[in-house]
Amino acid sequence: MTTLTNHQIRLASRPQGLPVEANWQRSQEPVAQPDEGGVLVQTLALSLDPAMRGWMNEGKSYIPPVGIGEVMRAGGVGRVVASRNPAFAVGDAVYASLGVQEYALIPAAEVRRSGLAKIDLRAGSLTQWLNVLGMPGMTGYFGLMDVGVPKAGETLVVSGAAGAVGQTVGQLAKIKGLRVVGIAGGQAKCDWVVKELGFDACIDYKAGDVRAGLKEYCPSGVDIYFDNVGGDILDAVLARINRKARIVICGAISQYNNTTAVQGPRNYMSLLVNRARMEGMVVFDYADRYPQAIAELAGYLRDGRMKSREDVVEGLQSFPDALLRLFSGANFGKLVLKVAD
Amino acid sequence: MTTLTNHQIRLASRPQGLPVEANWQRSQEPVAQPDEGGVLVQTLALSLDPAMRGWMNEGKSYIPPVGIGEVMRAGGVGRVVASRNPAFAVGDAVYASLGVQEYALIPAAEVRRSGLAKIDLRAGSLTQWLNVLGMPGMTGYFGLMDVGVPKAGETLVVSGAAGAVGQTVGQLAKIKGLRVVGIAGGQAKCDWVVKELGFDACIDYKAGDVRAGLKEYCPSGVDIYFDNVGGDILDAVLARINRKARIVICGAISQYNNTTAVQGPRNYMSLLVNRARMEGMVVFDYADRYPQAIAELAGYLRDGRMKSREDVVEGLQSFPDALLRLFSGANFGKLVLKVAD
Repeated sequence: MTTLTNHQIRLASRPQGLPVEANWQRSQEPVAQPDEGGVLVQTLALSLDPAMRGWMNEGKSYIPPVGIGEVMRAGGVGRVVASRNPAFAVGDAVYASLGVQEYALIPAAEVRRSGLAKIDLRAGSLTQWLNVLGMPGMTGYFGLMDVGVPKAGETLVVSGAAGAVGQTVGQLAKIKGLRVVGIAGGQAKCDWVVKELGFDACIDYKAGDVRAGLKEYCPSGVDIYFDNVGGDILDAVLARINRKARIVICGAISQYNNTTAVQGPRNYMSLLVNRARMEGMVVFDYADRYPQAIAELAGYLRDGRMKSREDVVEGLQSFPDALLRLFSGANFGKLVLKVAD
Repeated sequence: MTTLTNHQIRLASRPQGLPVEANWQRSQEPVAQPDEGGVLVQTLALSLDPAMRGWMNEGKSYIPPVGIGEVMRAGGVGRVVASRNPAFAVGDAVYASLGVQEYALIPAAEVRRSGLAKIDLRAGSLTQWLNVLGMPGMTGYFGLMDVGVPKAGETLVVSGAAGAVGQTVGQLAKIKGLRVVGIAGGQAKCDWVVKELGFDACIDYKAGDVRAGLKEYCPSGVDIYFDNVGGDILDAVLARINRKARIVICGAISQYNNTTAVQGPRNYMSLLVNRARMEGMVVFDYADRYPQAIAELAGYLRDGRMKSREDVVEGLQSFPDALLRLFSGANFGKLVLKVAD
């Protein structure tokens, strides 16, 4: 048996602003075999997420930063190629925190923390398991249901509407009986969420005035705002919220690459005037309830009430460039890096 | 019977930044008699509140702005001097939205909206009815209990600690078993809230580093922040909050006289990292429950578990200057304008 080679992308230094090539180090090493209880997974596809930018920064957050010299953290789907763990057999399709590498050796001690779990490819495709049935889907599901607390007839606005979280949130809110207005960059994305996903309207923030769009498309105000972007768009929505509105703080992609101070929401006193709340969420808190959410979302995929779109970039070595697509908004749908067939 | 003269202070123009003398108009007119169902109240003392600054601005808020030429809105306590309403007798001590004037004629149609209610001077003094037993007390009570949701053993930080709302919040939180850290301007206020009111500590924001103070006095982080000030202090606290922390947005006095944009909380993404929420409140929403809160707070005053301090300025004509004391932080305790004996 020839020893397999594992190509990897490691964090070489912490970026100032947008990540550049010098922040990455490309490495390779022989693939090792699992310990008792461990599993070796071949990476098939990796999830590229805005949150990755935060993991590259030093300092306390909801999970520790990626260390300098470490393989970059990434969730992904793959195939078990060696196993000394009775719960996983060679050939199983799995999700785990695999890292930006071709093979992830998950030692026994890390199985639980890696989130290693079998996935059922009858419920969704590999890439859907990184999208609606994966972390973005779970984020959208619990952010909407538990923090947003939607009621039929209310109006929801979601930014990053064509992105991985946004598409789940908007479609789920439609299913729950809400009026749904997306905010996305470009006419193509806006057309897609309205015509394909069934949103009631979508505001192209690159083309026009978000405030005017909100006024036009949210005639009864905004009851839930699911925020993936922060910045000026958050302020524009704050100016239109209703009494007892809920603002779900899921992300702030407009601010992640700032080299100056974050722009705080200048209209936050609208929370007082409207007795509204702004609340943050981290998907990992809901891990115990993923199976129930996956079952519900898989049902919607199966009966066609929910669609998904992935934007697939090929090849492990494309990772640094592909990641930048998130911050320019160039991706259209959930951004996935295909590593192997 | 000679006709009484009613001296009044009206809003002449909307201020840019701090209110100046030219924004006010001093007027006088004969006192009229009540209609059927109406009441005439002689003003004894008026409540001077940070919220007044907001009422002077144009535009939508939780209540309409004071109109140009109208008597400035103010809550106050007084004595009924004429009544054609069976619920109120001459001589009754009452609270109502009286306005900055010596006599308030409350027509039948306005009785309810004015909040006219008898007050029991055995439960608290006239000025306490503008403080712990009045709107500031109700604001502190419901903001803490309903929005803050305190649990014994948690740590609460309150800004404007020596002010009307702050003193209620801090003392009530101590009674409920929390660790309480105040933020106030000046050593005298800090000494008072610690030595007289029993707060665990107080940070003098004029003297030193609020961040360092929070680190020292909140060794277990911050579970509830009751914010009366906004600005840099809100950011400093956001950097120290615990998981599932609650930030009660009651006011933002540091921002009310801005002539430039409001400074939004730059550290708001701490809400995400900590799964925390920031929520606004308006005291009027809790009007149905004032009697129950007043009964509880009056009990604490009676048994000495709660104290109050008022800063009394004399004379209706002092109103414009007295109001400015709030924004410089010159007042020490609840600011009250005494209008008559």
